[in-house]
Amino acid sequence: MEQSRLNQQFAFFREIDKEKKIGRQTYLSDASRKENDAEHAWHMAIMTLLLSEYANQEIDVLKTMSMLLIHDLVEIDAGDTYAYDEEGKKTQREREMAAAERIFGLLPDDQGKKMRALWEEFEACETAEAKFARTMDNIQPQMLNDASDGLAWVEHGVHISQIMKRNEHTGEGSEILWDYAYHNFVEPHMQAGHIRTDGEDVSN
Amino acid sequence: MEQSRLNQQFAFFREIDKEKKIGRQTYLSDASRKENDAEHAWHMAIMTLLLSEYANQEIDVLKTMSMLLIHDLVEIDAGDTYAYDEEGKKTQREREMAAAERIFGLLPDDQGKKMRALWEEFEACETAEAKFARTMDNIQPQMLNDASDGLAWVEHGVHISQIMKRNEHTGEGSEILWDYAYHNFVEPHMQAGHIRTDGEDVSN
Repeated sequence: MEQSRLNQQFAFFREIDKEKKIGRQTYLSDASRKENDAEHAWHMAIMTLLLSEYANQEIDVLKTMSMLLIHDLVEIDAGDTYAYDEEGKKTQREREMAAAERIFGLLPDDQGKKMRALWEEFEACETAEAKFARTMDNIQPQMLNDASDGLAWVEHGVHISQIMKRNEHTGEGSEILWDYAYHNFVEPHMQAGHIRTDGEDVSN
Repeated sequence: MEQSRLNQQFAFFREIDKEKKIGRQTYLSDASRKENDAEHAWHMAIMTLLLSEYANQEIDVLKTMSMLLIHDLVEIDAGDTYAYDEEGKKTQREREMAAAERIFGLLPDDQGKKMRALWEEFEACETAEAKFARTMDNIQPQMLNDASDGLAWVEHGVHISQIMKRNEHTGEGSEILWDYAYHNFVEPHMQAGHIRTDGEDVSN
């Protein structure tokens, strides 16, 4: 019994190793390469540990960190959908649901259900923990985009209207952090011309 | 006040981005490349979340995960010391202490002290949390070495006596997990000749 439970758990751990190969569009601070999902999750878990004091509502830190650590696992099957890829986003939910079914299904039933519920909670973005996790998920790449001189924004020709739409709910997890990120990571790159501010945004 | 606290916190988050470039000797499951410290920490944090039920003594899961997420940050300055690099290990402690001083020193004083204490607790390996974290730190690479057909063991000509010495205390965090790892990840590679078992080990 215990042996078979352990076998299921380790099958899951071996499977999620693949997240280290799911690339994101965000460059590392030094712009030497783009980061992957595992690195992104690790970074946000530490940020949560040290920034939870700014949450709008008190959060369960363990739950929020766990959510962030596992929230991108579905991309092992579904791939990363770039924040401003409007075509990809149309099928994203369906692809990710199937992935959650398979990947969390590798775990013993009780743990698979718990992890699945945690992922669903993140997706629904209604609880204080999910809202804070979403804040992290949006400001961590902004911090790296700023550090790498706006490279990812420039490459994708991102318009400020896209960023504002994407961040419509970022302040719901933490007003203080979204305010900080906007003024320190986003605004300077509008002034520098790395984020487009010209006329109408035509990509939506 | 808040602004300056946030500046310190984000200076730390930008600095630790470098952990994504600290290479380890462990290959990913598919042997395509070696993993880095951030990926390793991410993997172990999830393992802790799902394996804490096997701890010899009950553990504080948040504390253990936090410890694992930050325990390798000192390698940003001190570099990764391979488990079986006896020369490197002689100066490891000194190099890592200086690194802890500088890196955790970027944080606001209260948080820097907490993170430093967490790292010291991991290093001392006396509490239930530190012992379990150490168990994770030893069995996660064993799992990957097994999945990648023992490649890292073969490349370094590792002898079973070195593994047993390295794992002298692995069972102190979880007897069940060390037993599982030994029988499932280590033993098969002695039989397959990926781990040396011949005569005396001469590397110590």
